[in-house]
Amino acid sequence: MRIVVALGGNALLRRGQPMTSENQRANVRIAAEALAPIARKHQLIISHGNGPQVGLLALQASYYNDAETYPLDVLGAQTEGMIGYLIEQELGNILPFEQPFASILTMVEVDINDPAFNNPTKPIGPVFEEEEAKRLAREKKWVMKKEGDKWRRFVPSPVPQRIFELRPIKWLLEKGTIVICTGGGGIPTVYDNKGNLGGAEVVIDKDYAGALLAKELEADMYIMATDADAVYTGWGTPEVKALTNVTYEDLKNEDFDPGSIGPKVISACWFAEKTGKKAGIGSLKDLEKITTGEKGTTISPGKDKAGEVFGRKI
Amino acid sequence: MRIVVALGGNALLRRGQPMTSENQRANVRIAAEALAPIARKHQLIISHGNGPQVGLLALQASYYNDAETYPLDVLGAQTEGMIGYLIEQELGNILPFEQPFASILTMVEVDINDPAFNNPTKPIGPVFEEEEAKRLAREKKWVMKKEGDKWRRFVPSPVPQRIFELRPIKWLLEKGTIVICTGGGGIPTVYDNKGNLGGAEVVIDKDYAGALLAKELEADMYIMATDADAVYTGWGTPEVKALTNVTYEDLKNEDFDPGSIGPKVISACWFAEKTGKKAGIGSLKDLEKITTGEKGTTISPGKDKAGEVFGRKI
Repeated sequence: MRIVVALGGNALLRRGQPMTSENQRANVRIAAEALAPIARKHQLIISHGNGPQVGLLALQASYYNDAETYPLDVLGAQTEGMIGYLIEQELGNILPFEQPFASILTMVEVDINDPAFNNPTKPIGPVFEEEEAKRLAREKKWVMKKEGDKWRRFVPSPVPQRIFELRPIKWLLEKGTIVICTGGGGIPTVYDNKGNLGGAEVVIDKDYAGALLAKELEADMYIMATDADAVYTGWGTPEVKALTNVTYEDLKNEDFDPGSIGPKVISACWFAEKTGKKAGIGSLKDLEKITTGEKGTTISPGKDKAGEVFGRKI
Repeated sequence: MRIVVALGGNALLRRGQPMTSENQRANVRIAAEALAPIARKHQLIISHGNGPQVGLLALQASYYNDAETYPLDVLGAQTEGMIGYLIEQELGNILPFEQPFASILTMVEVDINDPAFNNPTKPIGPVFEEEEAKRLAREKKWVMKKEGDKWRRFVPSPVPQRIFELRPIKWLLEKGTIVICTGGGGIPTVYDNKGNLGGAEVVIDKDYAGALLAKELEADMYIMATDADAVYTGWGTPEVKALTNVTYEDLKNEDFDPGSIGPKVISACWFAEKTGKKAGIGSLKDLEKITTGEKGTTISPGKDKAGEVFGRKI
């Protein structure tokens, strides 16, 4: 099978952990252990989030005043470099030396008229206390919102429209290469009115971008690895239930957290509908069993249309 | 012809320019204009320096105290992301949409026993006044040395031994892809005593890494684009002379600045000797005419051996 696995930002950095490179490398090593059995059996494409990392880089740059803060496309490209490198190196340390790898910088187009530009929904970077958050909002003109009992920076997250480097990715897969791409949802790019491609000050949802990647690569399965072992309904009630095998019909009347599991459920339904293939959502440690449907939540194509676009409420 | 072009850090950021992303993008656009005619006629592989950028990222990170400064392998990977993205996007804006591009993260092995580890020779990041330089040396344990009338951080620069992602790079070239790789001399990596690959706290010379890349790819020519229009002898004397067509024999008794043109001359001689092909050194704006030998300095294979390793004085 050809399988696209999207690693959540939390698979790379657990909540509350300091964002040191040692912590990230240690987490990437755990992810690599989970990915290795898939790589031995299947054709593997790895995507990953970058929310904590891209926000940290922006913050670091903003503390050093002799150079301006780099825009989110440039910082996104930096995180593709950093995270792609760590994944490639740590997975390479587990698999045979002969296994070819390639981490490909990936530009993803967004529509400049996407209404998401006016509504920052994507949290990035570390959490702050209220006072520090208000100072950052004032000084950096960042949008700071409450997340739980702390504050975070929020940026727009428009829908991914096109992945530019698809052909090189396909050529490398045909040669048996493990490809790491579309990291952080891809480097956000837009066309200006002269037809030139440039950067966008946004962070694309990596689950949406991974679904688009999996569809375009005609993948047999799209798996989103996260810190939950399945999709749950009735969370926080006595009727809490882990879902095993579902379709869009089972999900469309449920209410999922738009800040975490929601985009995964939407991406899974979209991929299943567009391709007729299955998507999986579950814990990184269960990765191998998610491919066989023994663990996690498997989303199969349903009868109803999940819709043409991402971003809709399920 | 298959041509490897290495862009100097100064082709991306002119001396004294603030390291904003706008400045870097504007310089990359100029570089892209010079690269486009080569891309239309030849098979093009682009490498680039990262000295100013990797030093800036280290500095930015060091100003923000909640996360430690990332090591130079991780920062090097970030610069491959950032610079590779800008080159790919700006060159893509000039060439036809159908032209495939791939920026490949590239790990380059160095030998942990390389004596260069004990002798920091590579300047990175911005320049400082003496007082600030001494403070950084004290607080960050960085090696700060005088460069001209200012101070800069210096790091070790061991010899590149192996490029790990050669096969994917070759496969992409066979499909007509313009490949951007080995940026910043590659992400510096070493094997530990358990046989695991990890990062090294160094910055590899990008001219050496580019020469190794050009040799391994069996390139027909290796060009180093810089801010000088040729290699000169007798610099600062009345006998100053721009070299046009030379071999190792013409160069071996000359004294070249080890901080700038020296590594380029060594890399050119090494490439010419190892492959029997020509290397070129010259100005970015003359790039097309350097390929035909009409501009810049062309270094051809000589009779004498330039030596088995990089890093020797010529």
